[in-house]
Amino acid sequence: MRSSIFPVVTVLGFATALFSVSFLVPLAYAFATNEPTVDSFATGFLITFFVGLAAHFLTRRFKRELQPRDGFLLVSAVWSLIPAFSTIPLVLFFDDLSFTDAYFETVSGLTTTGATVLTGLDTMPASINIWRHLLSWIGGMGILVLAVAILPLLGVGGSQVFKAETPGPMKDSKLTPRITETAKSLYLVYVALSLACAVSYKLAGMTWLDAFMHSGTTMSLSGFSSHDASFAYFDSPAIEMVSVAFMLISGVNFAIHFLAWRGKSFRPYVMCPETKWFLVLMLVSVLLIATFLLAHQQYTTFSEAFRFSLFNVVSVATTTGFANTDFGQWPIFAPLFMLFLSVFASAAGSTGGGIKMLRAVILFQHAVGELSRTLHPRAVNPVRIRDTVVSSQVISGVLAFMMMYGMSIITITMIQMFTGLEPIAALTGTIAMINCTGPGLGVLGPASNYSSLGDFQTWVYSFAMLLGRLEMFTILVLFTPAFWRK
Amino acid sequence: MRSSIFPVVTVLGFATALFSVSFLVPLAYAFATNEPTVDSFATGFLITFFVGLAAHFLTRRFKRELQPRDGFLLVSAVWSLIPAFSTIPLVLFFDDLSFTDAYFETVSGLTTTGATVLTGLDTMPASINIWRHLLSWIGGMGILVLAVAILPLLGVGGSQVFKAETPGPMKDSKLTPRITETAKSLYLVYVALSLACAVSYKLAGMTWLDAFMHSGTTMSLSGFSSHDASFAYFDSPAIEMVSVAFMLISGVNFAIHFLAWRGKSFRPYVMCPETKWFLVLMLVSVLLIATFLLAHQQYTTFSEAFRFSLFNVVSVATTTGFANTDFGQWPIFAPLFMLFLSVFASAAGSTGGGIKMLRAVILFQHAVGELSRTLHPRAVNPVRIRDTVVSSQVISGVLAFMMMYGMSIITITMIQMFTGLEPIAALTGTIAMINCTGPGLGVLGPASNYSSLGDFQTWVYSFAMLLGRLEMFTILVLFTPAFWRK
Ligand SMILES: [K+]
Ligand SMILES: [K+]
Repeated sequence: MRSSIFPVVTVLGFATALFSVSFLVPLAYAFATNEPTVDSFATGFLITFFVGLAAHFLTRRFKRELQPRDGFLLVSAVWSLIPAFSTIPLVLFFDDLSFTDAYFETVSGLTTTGATVLTGLDTMPASINIWRHLLSWIGGMGILVLAVAILPLLGVGGSQVFKAETPGPMKDSKLTPRITETAKSLYLVYVALSLACAVSYKLAGMTWLDAFMHSGTTMSLSGFSSHDASFAYFDSPAIEMVSVAFMLISGVNFAIHFLAWRGKSFRPYVMCPETKWFLVLMLVSVLLIATFLLAHQQYTTFSEAFRFSLFNVVSVATTTGFANTDFGQWPIFAPLFMLFLSVFASAAGSTGGGIKMLRAVILFQHAVGELSRTLHPRAVNPVRIRDTVVSSQVISGVLAFMMMYGMSIITITMIQMFTGLEPIAALTGTIAMINCTGPGLGVLGPASNYSSLGDFQTWVYSFAMLLGRLEMFTILVLFTPAFWRK
Repeated sequence: MRSSIFPVVTVLGFATALFSVSFLVPLAYAFATNEPTVDSFATGFLITFFVGLAAHFLTRRFKRELQPRDGFLLVSAVWSLIPAFSTIPLVLFFDDLSFTDAYFETVSGLTTTGATVLTGLDTMPASINIWRHLLSWIGGMGILVLAVAILPLLGVGGSQVFKAETPGPMKDSKLTPRITETAKSLYLVYVALSLACAVSYKLAGMTWLDAFMHSGTTMSLSGFSSHDASFAYFDSPAIEMVSVAFMLISGVNFAIHFLAWRGKSFRPYVMCPETKWFLVLMLVSVLLIATFLLAHQQYTTFSEAFRFSLFNVVSVATTTGFANTDFGQWPIFAPLFMLFLSVFASAAGSTGGGIKMLRAVILFQHAVGELSRTLHPRAVNPVRIRDTVVSSQVISGVLAFMMMYGMSIITITMIQMFTGLEPIAALTGTIAMINCTGPGLGVLGPASNYSSLGDFQTWVYSFAMLLGRLEMFTILVLFTPAFWRK
């Protein structure tokens, strides 16, 4: 047991100490503008830095090459412990904020879910909002490496198929060495696009502060805003267009962006079926919902219906969760359809959540193949992605992933209803948590937030966000006896 | 084309003519008691008999051995056309009943869904109720042969695994010859149990007429009643106990009943894992809901809570749909949990609907197996049912079945919401239709019925009942181009 946990702890400690540097950003801002949050962030930094460093050095002598088993433990521990450290400034600054709610907020940030339990965002110290948005932006970086490098190596839910486009030589099954290389490529793209997004927001009319914060939560598809009213605060079609463009960019596999950038060519996009399906799906859905809203007299002109459909459909479908109007007031087909899109619209290797377009296509092809195999039992209809036959092992993993995804949604919805949440909120909230989307409907709708939940319900949803973000298997495998055996 | 449809038509015509005999039961009753429905039933009988006979004889020269492809067409045609003929007496007798609503009613009867669009059941001619209940009872016979003999031969959704317990030699892949033999065995059990059920109902206090009618809708797990108030009309724990006992019996694979009866032994039940899981699940769920209802002050004593939990949980979970109280008024976790049970509780080869316990167990074992394969990629964790390894081909079929089942529920729910149905009714109604359960919640709840739906919505739900009853593939395969090619 010892020998299997300590090598993980030493890496975990190092990662925590490294992460502590991010406290310095809001700390510097608070210090420069004389905000009353200086002590809170300084304390957060010091505790996180020294606890991480101590954990690292005390266990360093156990260091060894990490195995897949260590990988599951490390990933789960990083994603559940870093949010715990991140709560320190929030709990210290807000007198009435419980650890339960603060943990929900930081998990929501780092998983890029973007659901909040805080109100009065517009009037609180900017450093708090900087911290929330920074957590999301850092979470986005974590997701990219997770999706493109780590999960495929761990073979989570058929994600081996995700590495088709991975930049650099990733065929190896060792955990550590080449991840750094992949991470560098992806981060280059992520940082460059984030800067472009911030500048675009500024040009469209935001302040620099808002531009940087919203760039972080756009590129990470998080959906946090520094305004209670989200994008309705700006009420600016120009800002919304920038947002839509960068949400769409972030819904695409970042490895494709990297290949396009390195090759100075649009060809990687054209060759990527996921990108095409994603864009076509977005276009068709935006037009469908615009027409639906017009037919239901929600708006008087098509251009107005199109504006609100475009922004909110893209926002929810990409699992961002920004809103420029209370779409919870629309006839309920529209928001439920948008949440349904969020299940599968964004690409593997994007910063989006859900099952990913690639898995959806594999599931669809498999079902159609089985249907025709019913007629011709000896026919061979292999599932193909980009002319490559997907192995039956991968398909089997994807199908198991889908089962766990479905069962998780049903179980968590049931638990939340059992504890008194009304069914629409329970179901949509669960879908919004597992897909890392953010707003649900009803009391968890876009005009409201998650502060009305009881403590137990809040913990369940914090768990749901981690479950969804780490693609089920990474967490669930820790609950199997086989994991802890030997 | 011609050569591939006419051999089906000749069998279809024969089946229709044979079915027409069932009109004689309500006709005889109406004649004997001088009810005003005599002409309606006589007309129904004559049209059905002669149309069937004509179709049979006009196409008899094309008769040949049926192929699997013919099987899909025949099964779909029988289950969609016989309800159409069955509407004749309803449409003729009720001036204000549309064909749309009448077809919903007869599909609901023959698929043993038991949802109704009729009100005033207590005051209408008994022959109408006899007809509705008879359709359900006949539907139950159809389902037994479908589930135990035909679907496994057609290889629908991994149902090959269902034939493990089939009485008689069924290893052959020819469609016709041995089905008769299997059918005889199952019908013997079905008729014997139906008589036992009717006598038990009579002893518990029903009239003979009610006893026979409710026996028909209990054994078929249909849930039709001759009273608007369903079992609340009787308000009798004795009658409810009889009902619960026979619903549980009908939720078990009838091939197991046959084997037990032939061997004069309880051993087949003990050896059948599906039966054990089913009974354990029912017991645990009844206790859970009873405790939940007590905790939410719905009832003042545990025995009262247990009585209502027992009856309604067993009724909904077995996909029957009787009610002895308006469980739609319970805190919504309870009825939603009951509907969730209806998805998978009843056994393959029972008269119940849903995906069947056997498929649920295969899906669960597969997901757990994949989870541990994530840790040990080279480990072999085959899915086993009764110590037999389930082939990967069957697992693949079951998984595809589950995908289509899930997608059908989502799509049909979306369509019903798009056309204006409120979301809880749309979702629960869709689940209740696809699982052939009957009552949903909200405007489609147990205290209400399906008459409030628009025509289009009614057709969608009629389709959903057939889709669920014929286990997705049988219908969906007709929509593939490959089916009609050559
Ligand atoms: K989000
Ligand atoms: K039923």
